[in-house]
Amino acid sequence: MTNEGVLMSEVQVHDTAGHSSSEPLRVALLGCGTVGSQVARMILTRGDDIIARVGRPLEIAGISVAHVDRPRQGLDSRLFTTDSAALVSRPDVDIVVELMGGIDPARELILTALRSGKSVVTANKALLAAHGEELNAAAEHNGVDLYYEAAVAGAIPIVRPLRESLVGDQVRQVMGIVNGTTNYVLDQMTTTGMDFEQAVAQAQQKGYAEADPTADVEGYDAAAKAALLASLAFHTRMRGDQVYREGITHITPDDIASAKDLDCVIKLLAVCEGGPEGIVARVHPALLPLSHPLASVSGAYNAVFVEAQEAGRLMFLGPGAGGAPTASAVLGDVVTVARNAVRGVAGPPQAVFDEFDILDTDDIQTRFHIRIQVRDEPGVLASVAEIFARHDVSMQTVRQTADDETAKDSSAILTVLTHQARQADLSACVSELGESPFVHSQPKVIRVEGMS
Amino acid sequence: MTNEGVLMSEVQVHDTAGHSSSEPLRVALLGCGTVGSQVARMILTRGDDIIARVGRPLEIAGISVAHVDRPRQGLDSRLFTTDSAALVSRPDVDIVVELMGGIDPARELILTALRSGKSVVTANKALLAAHGEELNAAAEHNGVDLYYEAAVAGAIPIVRPLRESLVGDQVRQVMGIVNGTTNYVLDQMTTTGMDFEQAVAQAQQKGYAEADPTADVEGYDAAAKAALLASLAFHTRMRGDQVYREGITHITPDDIASAKDLDCVIKLLAVCEGGPEGIVARVHPALLPLSHPLASVSGAYNAVFVEAQEAGRLMFLGPGAGGAPTASAVLGDVVTVARNAVRGVAGPPQAVFDEFDILDTDDIQTRFHIRIQVRDEPGVLASVAEIFARHDVSMQTVRQTADDETAKDSSAILTVLTHQARQADLSACVSELGESPFVHSQPKVIRVEGMS
Repeated sequence: MTNEGVLMSEVQVHDTAGHSSSEPLRVALLGCGTVGSQVARMILTRGDDIIARVGRPLEIAGISVAHVDRPRQGLDSRLFTTDSAALVSRPDVDIVVELMGGIDPARELILTALRSGKSVVTANKALLAAHGEELNAAAEHNGVDLYYEAAVAGAIPIVRPLRESLVGDQVRQVMGIVNGTTNYVLDQMTTTGMDFEQAVAQAQQKGYAEADPTADVEGYDAAAKAALLASLAFHTRMRGDQVYREGITHITPDDIASAKDLDCVIKLLAVCEGGPEGIVARVHPALLPLSHPLASVSGAYNAVFVEAQEAGRLMFLGPGAGGAPTASAVLGDVVTVARNAVRGVAGPPQAVFDEFDILDTDDIQTRFHIRIQVRDEPGVLASVAEIFARHDVSMQTVRQTADDETAKDSSAILTVLTHQARQADLSACVSELGESPFVHSQPKVIRVEGMS
Repeated sequence: MTNEGVLMSEVQVHDTAGHSSSEPLRVALLGCGTVGSQVARMILTRGDDIIARVGRPLEIAGISVAHVDRPRQGLDSRLFTTDSAALVSRPDVDIVVELMGGIDPARELILTALRSGKSVVTANKALLAAHGEELNAAAEHNGVDLYYEAAVAGAIPIVRPLRESLVGDQVRQVMGIVNGTTNYVLDQMTTTGMDFEQAVAQAQQKGYAEADPTADVEGYDAAAKAALLASLAFHTRMRGDQVYREGITHITPDDIASAKDLDCVIKLLAVCEGGPEGIVARVHPALLPLSHPLASVSGAYNAVFVEAQEAGRLMFLGPGAGGAPTASAVLGDVVTVARNAVRGVAGPPQAVFDEFDILDTDDIQTRFHIRIQVRDEPGVLASVAEIFARHDVSMQTVRQTADDETAKDSSAILTVLTHQARQADLSACVSELGESPFVHSQPKVIRVEGMS
């Protein structure tokens, strides 16, 4: 148990900065893509800084990759291996950094590392959102660290504030733009008028979207982050599949224009809310007033807005992705974990002590923006209003405009802004509207946030 | 040494959440004003949450105040004492929370507490900016914690991100709005057109400014925070008196209007910059383009913008002051410190490992905005340009407008926006301009930030 020796025998709780030992702490990297290679580069080039911060040098013990013989500039080819399982069990490895992504084999490799007494740093949001409970429990049980700052909102330092700074307070709401790809796509649609497909194609060209953009545009990536944010903010457990999720594929230039008319933009939001009756996390596009701090977060940036009972409103903003920013967040965690290891302790564990009920999707309350194409004749507005009232959905404003495209067919567009309404009530209302003879096509519904 | 017993004998590094002992950790409060009374209230009312977070209950051991017999709602009068010195030495006190402010006797009391093995939480920026080195050294030497999140930028969690999240990165610049009073005053001047004295009077009326506003409007408060930010960001030591400081008392409605003409606002900024040649921290009003993220930070809010080599640009925003937000930040520290104490460790010490030179004020480089009242006649602009050129100050734009107030006196206003210039060069240039026969009054200089 060489590794336990390194971790446990040199407990020097109050010694600092490099005086205890020059023996390096050894780091294994799983994956060497954009982020992995940057982390490796930073470990190799920032030796003195790291010694000053950790108290001992960091050394790369090995890097697991799919293809060993691909040339990688600046990295000794002898470090590479395809045998991840052997690498994470090696007794000379102290810290494992998982950057391969995906559920399998990342889950098993991290569990093996934790059970061998190695601390783990990961940026794998999908894995944490699905198996965070099991992984955190394994870390705690084995007295080692599991850190994942890079998994939650790119390079924005949000995990420590939620885990530590706000730990004496009570978070009420977390609302964030946590997916740079969709933020870029919606931004392009807003500023240039292009449609969804054109904007995605441009994002792919610029490297902001994957060849298969599903995980981003359908909100899966944001939902995983929302689950992590809710778990941290409410000191509870939430999985990605417990997050209400709606993507941006249905957003049209008409929606964007309609939002503009209300001095709003459309953003893909991750919202986590808690109250005595339970918590809820949801990911969906929403109209946001231009005056809201999140409205001006553009391009590949992420931002997280936190409202706490005593602290009030806080906002955190930074790059949502990218090799260097993600590598910075990962290395921050590696340095913290290494410093803990030198002192023979683990950091504060994932504090799970509140088991909240997760609210039924039907009970989620928000405001809604609904566009309805109706027959342009007397009495229709009254009929529409009657349907809203019968379903307990209170209208704040209704606006009637000519339907540009079908003006000659005597149809008009009703734009309704509701007060807070239950999702179930709104769905029933919209469903009845869709079946009404005076409504020409299925009404278009988008949520509204940040409007008083 | 009862206290050491509590701190050291119950090391249960990996035990969590309340299973180790029900013996309370005892907190002494120094000061019971707006923040102190809120901290006391939160400790008393959030018992279960705190046990879940710390693993043991927190109990108030005593509160030192100037007047024991003043009634304080909800707090047992037997807790109060005027004898601060006795309170911080009591063996049954584990954690000292200093909220009295000022240098003396706060400094001696904190040192006594640290030397008695008690961890300390403080919001005292003036004390930390003057004696941070001594206090941090005492904490490290005695193996206890000194935490001060509330001292740096109100309730914004900025200390942990700088101390931990970004520790693997290299910070290049920190730029913040860290004084809510001056931000409110400048905001009022901008939105209503009122002058400095009127805006300060209104801030006083609303409770945003002290009866004697000197510490805020002359930039002393911001300079103390800038020193703390620079020390954290560059892992070095900087005192408040090493920060270049200029207040907002000289800002006129003309300055505000002139900024507006350039699509700018005037903000009191704290800027910390580091490079190979040294670091510098400066506090002064500056023109900031409306498009800059800090430009829209209004009222009593604080915001800190951090640019790091790998992470890129991050921004943190939140309430700059106020009883509840400050109490939230203090209690977050108390909980962290208490959790460390339960586990028998101290948190990461103030990482000081870079001794940077502090740049001479003369060498500070910024852009400048200069308004010059000149005689309105041919050749004056050429003469002015010649003076700028001779002092190595490069002009980017010059604009000439009629002088509204003295139009009949044939004078004009030249507004110059410079490229980056050394402060010494600019001062010499302005001094020569002021003595020139064709310049009617001393030119008005304001720095410019965030303009590309």
